[in-house]
Amino acid sequence: MAQGTLLYAQSGGVTAVINATASAVIAEARQRKVKVLAARNGILGALREDLIDTSKESVAAIRALAHTPGGAFGSCRYKLKSLDADRAKYERLLEVFKAHDVRWFLYNGGNDSADTALKVSRLAKAFGYPLTCIGVPKTIDNDLAVTDTCPGFGSAAKYTAVSVREAALDVAAMAETSTKVFIYEAMGRHAGWLAAAAGLAGQSPDDAPQIVLLPERAYDEAAFLAKVDAVVAKVGWCVVVASEGIHTADGRFVADAGGGTDSFGHTQLGGVAAYLAGRVKQQLGHKVHWTLPDYLQRSARHIASRTDWDQAQAAGKAAVQYALKGMNAVMPVIVRSSDAPYRWKIEPAPLERIANAEKKMPAGFLRKDGFGISERARAYLAPLIRGEAPLPYGSDGLPKYVTLKNVAVARKLPAWEG
Amino acid sequence: MAQGTLLYAQSGGVTAVINATASAVIAEARQRKVKVLAARNGILGALREDLIDTSKESVAAIRALAHTPGGAFGSCRYKLKSLDADRAKYERLLEVFKAHDVRWFLYNGGNDSADTALKVSRLAKAFGYPLTCIGVPKTIDNDLAVTDTCPGFGSAAKYTAVSVREAALDVAAMAETSTKVFIYEAMGRHAGWLAAAAGLAGQSPDDAPQIVLLPERAYDEAAFLAKVDAVVAKVGWCVVVASEGIHTADGRFVADAGGGTDSFGHTQLGGVAAYLAGRVKQQLGHKVHWTLPDYLQRSARHIASRTDWDQAQAAGKAAVQYALKGMNAVMPVIVRSSDAPYRWKIEPAPLERIANAEKKMPAGFLRKDGFGISERARAYLAPLIRGEAPLPYGSDGLPKYVTLKNVAVARKLPAWEG
Repeated sequence: MAQGTLLYAQSGGVTAVINATASAVIAEARQRKVKVLAARNGILGALREDLIDTSKESVAAIRALAHTPGGAFGSCRYKLKSLDADRAKYERLLEVFKAHDVRWFLYNGGNDSADTALKVSRLAKAFGYPLTCIGVPKTIDNDLAVTDTCPGFGSAAKYTAVSVREAALDVAAMAETSTKVFIYEAMGRHAGWLAAAAGLAGQSPDDAPQIVLLPERAYDEAAFLAKVDAVVAKVGWCVVVASEGIHTADGRFVADAGGGTDSFGHTQLGGVAAYLAGRVKQQLGHKVHWTLPDYLQRSARHIASRTDWDQAQAAGKAAVQYALKGMNAVMPVIVRSSDAPYRWKIEPAPLERIANAEKKMPAGFLRKDGFGISERARAYLAPLIRGEAPLPYGSDGLPKYVTLKNVAVARKLPAWEG
Repeated sequence: MAQGTLLYAQSGGVTAVINATASAVIAEARQRKVKVLAARNGILGALREDLIDTSKESVAAIRALAHTPGGAFGSCRYKLKSLDADRAKYERLLEVFKAHDVRWFLYNGGNDSADTALKVSRLAKAFGYPLTCIGVPKTIDNDLAVTDTCPGFGSAAKYTAVSVREAALDVAAMAETSTKVFIYEAMGRHAGWLAAAAGLAGQSPDDAPQIVLLPERAYDEAAFLAKVDAVVAKVGWCVVVASEGIHTADGRFVADAGGGTDSFGHTQLGGVAAYLAGRVKQQLGHKVHWTLPDYLQRSARHIASRTDWDQAQAAGKAAVQYALKGMNAVMPVIVRSSDAPYRWKIEPAPLERIANAEKKMPAGFLRKDGFGISERARAYLAPLIRGEAPLPYGSDGLPKYVTLKNVAVARKLPAWEG
């Protein structure tokens, strides 16, 4: 057995496959006889010394973890600031690590998490504490730098493309006497990756979605409404996919415009699809329906992408291998060598290049008219939704998702006064 | 070959499995050498003499139709009134039927369609035109009388239960620092069948969904908010499933309360989940997210129920058999003989008992506190979401849905002046 403990933590919004990464981490560490603890609710569990002993979980449970969505150990939205501003917290982390002989820290999240892992590794070095920190990629937003794509994105992308294609068949059947315009709101505050993936649902400009609105292009209401009307006139109906992050040329989020007051005078929560639906109805008079899938799009393990699932597990396995080799402050990233046939491998990349960076969607991914995706985008996105990830169902007709025991490790330190 | 033509039409909101019924109708008729025409866009196609020759579709296409959501021939929301009020339309239908030697009319829809089929059969009799009219059940609302359940409901129910379970895993993982309350809006204007089906996602009162709001119980805001707070205090987070049809004791729809004006002064479309989310945020201060799956819930063939799919096909097959036997003015209905093990069969029921009736959810299906479903409801609902219906995927990662050729039959009559 290797000396010391490996600590794994999940961070930020969870996905359909982050537990697949966790499963691979634990399975790979077990094979190498390394003890794995998990922090409950992400970095908060590490600060609170609220650690979970994964050795209490059966082999079957860890295997089932690979097809269970959500974050099995709990995740959190909790960003550590700079070493100076949050020094006490970083030092507390090191205390907890020392108390439990943590020699490898795997932080599974986005760019914030990469930044935290990097800072912890620097502080450990400064204190002379031997620690290897690894960032493990995860985000449905697909906005991590360096890596070709992010585990979690492909499955959310597949959910989006499949859902849009299915809803479009419904709309097409009913358009003669009912809904003519259907609006789908996709996640993506800063970049339109998921809305772009909806473009895979169709092949030609007349296929749904006929209109994709991305934050990468300023929202122009007159142009949008004219396009909707033109599509309805030609096709008979229109499916719109809008990224939640679309904004006007002056930088105002359309989602915020959607907020207002309800009939009781209460403040309403905003929403892009609701807003666009209102405009279409009022300005064009078409019957309109809209959907806000919200968390369904990032938790829908039942329609996960096999490519994504494979990559999530490969990233977890590589993270353990890098850790045990002492490759400090790196992240296993996905490197694409070919679109068709799709070829990828996992390679280490320095966290310095990833921490706090954000990958934007290339300008060339938009179709010239701004209402769809280009062939280049299609070539990039298509492989990411390919393949169906296996999923066992119970006799009750529901997927067999696992709930872990999550047995706490005995505390060794005074309570954290954070 | 039997004498005459069989005309099939789809009516009302489409489902994930109405095309499975259509596929079974065509396959069964082909086996019996009966020619099948389909009306384009439901009864409108029959009135307009806009008929589709299904013999132009390949065997493979009709087979693929069985796993394609939406309505392949087009459906419509178009209700014929009484024989007196809409006499000209009913007579036009008979003219079109005569012109194309239609001897069997299969109308695939809900209670309105059953009523139309019944009226057409009566008029044909009065005119001495030999016609057999069959209603074929379909509706995600599960509100048809006589039949134990309606093809389309089980798949939407399965989508709902699976989506709620998946989203709950997401919420549970993030609740410590992020969303504590998640609200899911289910279709169901008059009866809460789909919201009730969400109850299958959990077993105990602490499992998601901890709160189910049904139109069968008046919405009481104070009681709802108190319950949300109690669940958050105990479980740490709360998943609410609300039927779009919930209303206050004075009969006001909560969805209408949600409407109002946006920040530009435009009228907003209402919504139950958006409204409840606003109340939870403002009154309890919890971070809240909500989803409106809308058409996704009734078109999600990718997560269809095998039970539902089997029943949709069995109903189509039986409809043809009844038609060819001359069993006029009946509907093949699903009869349940046992909950566990689940046993069902198809039997004919007179349209008179189904037309314009509406099946309510039994009062005993609600849990005593009004925030969940009873064991009796569970026993009824559980078999309906069981089993996974086969679905082929393409190498592009999308389900292989078929688009029919829908070749029009040459018109024989003057245009309809409807």
